[in-house]
Amino acid sequence: MKTWPDCIPCILKMSLNVAYDIFKERQDITNLFDNILAIESIQKNRYETTPPEIIRDIWKLLIDRTGITDPLYEKKRLQNSLALNVYPYAKESVIKSYDPFKEALKWSIGGNFIDIMAGINNFKKDDFIRKINKMNIDEDAVYELRNRFKKSKKVLYFCDNCGEIVFDRLFGEILKDIFKLDIFFVVRSVAVLNDATKEDAFSVGLNKIGTVLENGIIEPLPGFILEKASSELIKLMDNVDLIISKGGGNFDTLSEKKSLKGKVSFLLQAKCRPYVLMHGIDKGNLIVYNF
Amino acid sequence: MKTWPDCIPCILKMSLNVAYDIFKERQDITNLFDNILAIESIQKNRYETTPPEIIRDIWKLLIDRTGITDPLYEKKRLQNSLALNVYPYAKESVIKSYDPFKEALKWSIGGNFIDIMAGINNFKKDDFIRKINKMNIDEDAVYELRNRFKKSKKVLYFCDNCGEIVFDRLFGEILKDIFKLDIFFVVRSVAVLNDATKEDAFSVGLNKIGTVLENGIIEPLPGFILEKASSELIKLMDNVDLIISKGGGNFDTLSEKKSLKGKVSFLLQAKCRPYVLMHGIDKGNLIVYNF
Repeated sequence: MKTWPDCIPCILKMSLNVAYDIFKERQDITNLFDNILAIESIQKNRYETTPPEIIRDIWKLLIDRTGITDPLYEKKRLQNSLALNVYPYAKESVIKSYDPFKEALKWSIGGNFIDIMAGINNFKKDDFIRKINKMNIDEDAVYELRNRFKKSKKVLYFCDNCGEIVFDRLFGEILKDIFKLDIFFVVRSVAVLNDATKEDAFSVGLNKIGTVLENGIIEPLPGFILEKASSELIKLMDNVDLIISKGGGNFDTLSEKKSLKGKVSFLLQAKCRPYVLMHGIDKGNLIVYNF
Repeated sequence: MKTWPDCIPCILKMSLNVAYDIFKERQDITNLFDNILAIESIQKNRYETTPPEIIRDIWKLLIDRTGITDPLYEKKRLQNSLALNVYPYAKESVIKSYDPFKEALKWSIGGNFIDIMAGINNFKKDDFIRKINKMNIDEDAVYELRNRFKKSKKVLYFCDNCGEIVFDRLFGEILKDIFKLDIFFVVRSVAVLNDATKEDAFSVGLNKIGTVLENGIIEPLPGFILEKASSELIKLMDNVDLIISKGGGNFDTLSEKKSLKGKVSFLLQAKCRPYVLMHGIDKGNLIVYNF
């Protein structure tokens, strides 16, 4: 998905929130904001690019100005730990469910709610559980996704945010159990936003469920651009039967790659108007988009 | 209050919401957004101006592009009517209160919650009542405000949003009852955002409590700039004992006028980070700022 006008205020607001986290002086925040507003991908090329590429440019600027390569390091740790506290409850509700596949899928997509872009820093266990239980999902899309898994032996799974990856683990456990498949979890090589890195993947135990791989992209890009990835990963993409893409940033970038049609299923939450309008569902609901 | 970086994404988001209300075609929305992003008061002079002046420039552009002078006309009517439905409950809770002045004040500032800038289009009665009851207010500031009213015979009262004006009426009734004073309610001459005009003031009965005056500003300015107002109003400002200024836009513009110090009390809600940081209170709480 290329950038919509809506993405601009949203990205600017997120950037400001991070600036307030880093700086104490209002003048420093203002200077950084002015630099961000002036970047070429906002001022000139906004609709020719994708939102993750704009965020990459902002993140580079942020690192350049502050020397801090991972400003949300502590927040990400906290998100993983909060989600791990919910995990036992989620696991029980999945196991007890009449349809563990669908229930685990709901938790995994619902976990996408834990997103710095959506202004979610921390979250409370009870609120989170209440939110997950309220979210709707399209039954036909779930049916098609189940069929895609049935036909697959090897699955490549693009992870998104910290916290969310705990529920990717849960979904992975159920997928292995039902479909007996091999999963390759892909995380960012370079930290950006609250996206999961290898350290996060190991800390929540994704490595116990499948193989954890870095994407090999040596930029703070909160998405996946094929041409920038490691050759190992590109080869693997050819060799797997199904690609699962979690979250907004991966959707924005991977859905631009028409050659992947028929092979990717996008799982994300309708957190903003562009997603709501594109997918024709209400805000806050769960998207299963079998590309 | 001059513009903060935070105001830019906030103003852009509000403008986009209005554009989506007006246009059906995405290209029209995108074109309008690009024109808005390019206006001089955003691109060049953002920190030399006040947020209401940026919004004025956007509103002029909006009128110029669409020919629609009051895009939120229907929404404003709805807000007044929803607020009028809450009025009997609010009036009863004020009359039964041990401190009707403070209780009516809370309703009046709480009504500022009904704000297009804060993304509030419509609202539900029960949610609104629950919100009002949760809001905190500084007792010392209320004490000083009460003293200011005690010393006053004539009060000029700058109104802000539709819906909110219903609770200004209630506050006005209590003020007249307790302090036996004359109130002059000032509304916008030209429609902008969901700000109240003369039609709104009459429709909720402000004219039964005091004199309703237009500000005489012949621009869609969601604030008050003394130099642009009618000479009649400027004279009146000299002749009253106290000026009450409701809401964010009036605060932003009037608080820049140091000559008014000692004579203005600002009543608004802490809806955004700049207000939270300036007034040192939590988001969502009520501000009584005796200038």
